[in-house]
Amino acid sequence: MQIAIALFERFTALDAVGPYETLSRMPGAETVFVAERPGPVRNDNGSLGLVADRAFADVPNPDILVVPGGPGQSDQMANETLLDWVRSADATSTWTTSVCTGSLLLAAAGLLKGRRATSHWLALAELERFGVESTGERVVFDGKYVTAAGVSSGLDMGLALIGRIAGDEQAQTVQLLTEYDPQPPYDAGSPQKAPAHLVEKFRAGSRFSQ
Amino acid sequence: MQIAIALFERFTALDAVGPYETLSRMPGAETVFVAERPGPVRNDNGSLGLVADRAFADVPNPDILVVPGGPGQSDQMANETLLDWVRSADATSTWTTSVCTGSLLLAAAGLLKGRRATSHWLALAELERFGVESTGERVVFDGKYVTAAGVSSGLDMGLALIGRIAGDEQAQTVQLLTEYDPQPPYDAGSPQKAPAHLVEKFRAGSRFSQ
Repeated sequence: MQIAIALFERFTALDAVGPYETLSRMPGAETVFVAERPGPVRNDNGSLGLVADRAFADVPNPDILVVPGGPGQSDQMANETLLDWVRSADATSTWTTSVCTGSLLLAAAGLLKGRRATSHWLALAELERFGVESTGERVVFDGKYVTAAGVSSGLDMGLALIGRIAGDEQAQTVQLLTEYDPQPPYDAGSPQKAPAHLVEKFRAGSRFSQ
Repeated sequence: MQIAIALFERFTALDAVGPYETLSRMPGAETVFVAERPGPVRNDNGSLGLVADRAFADVPNPDILVVPGGPGQSDQMANETLLDWVRSADATSTWTTSVCTGSLLLAAAGLLKGRRATSHWLALAELERFGVESTGERVVFDGKYVTAAGVSSGLDMGLALIGRIAGDEQAQTVQLLTEYDPQPPYDAGSPQKAPAHLVEKFRAGSRFSQ
């Protein structure tokens, strides 16, 4: 079972590593980071470089496709090399997934039209513009398309997907070994829960219209 | 404020990227991945390479030191190059932190004797062997030493530390932007919550005596 995680400049690290740390622990999984060209790809902050071991062209038929998001997503919306690979990988994938604004790339590739999906809370309205029914849910399954909300939500998506593919016990095993028993010291992880003035500040400064 | 995250072969990716994704978003933070030699460092699974941009010797005085864990920690317990750097970085750090079995490396460096600390649930007894009072808590502050439990707990540690350094609102900001509103689809993230037969299986197969 080959899992391909797409990288592009200024991706958000946890968008990619959350699904990676969960899905790569599935029995039989072979996980590969792919990008337009092999080599290190820098994240949004620039201080993290994750190595793409293969070029898109070298991984044409992954069983599971994972598309992360991040500020660099904007520059990829018209990158036909990436979008073509997403489309052709999707044509034979068992599951096509995204985290955060990665769902906008799936949408730009034409894969989510008329489907239910999610994205980072600041990108939900943008997702609607592609004819997608955007939801505020953390993980959305619609057929073989699985989309997750912002950044950290890829952990929840990874476990949910392992449950579907390999059963509850495998998912529980991964949760136990990664000690995913979250105890955030604050309760500000969604626009419904965070202080209103912070939500307003980031809506006002967002690169997406709200 | 310089944050140095140590890498070594067969580290666990999320151990490093959880604290990274939170701490690097602090205003004024300069985050750098360091290792014995600059270049890509492979994780426990081998399928992920994270670039160390600097050698230990090039980052002698970080304000915050982060030591991840993972299966590769065992090989580092007698690596004086790494342990010497941990000791000398700690001599001037404001905060010295670990995730998962990274606390065993802090202990091997002699930094945790007589202190309260935590680790991956499978490594708590091992931590006690270094004269550390190991606790089952997810994040433990003891003076400037901050240790976190297994793998995913670095997210909680990162937010807690941002709160101490930069205040509640900065921590809430990072939680909101990373949409850290965890909704794991199972409740098996600790040995108290997971099915008993899974806990027993991994205790029996652990590289640490239980």
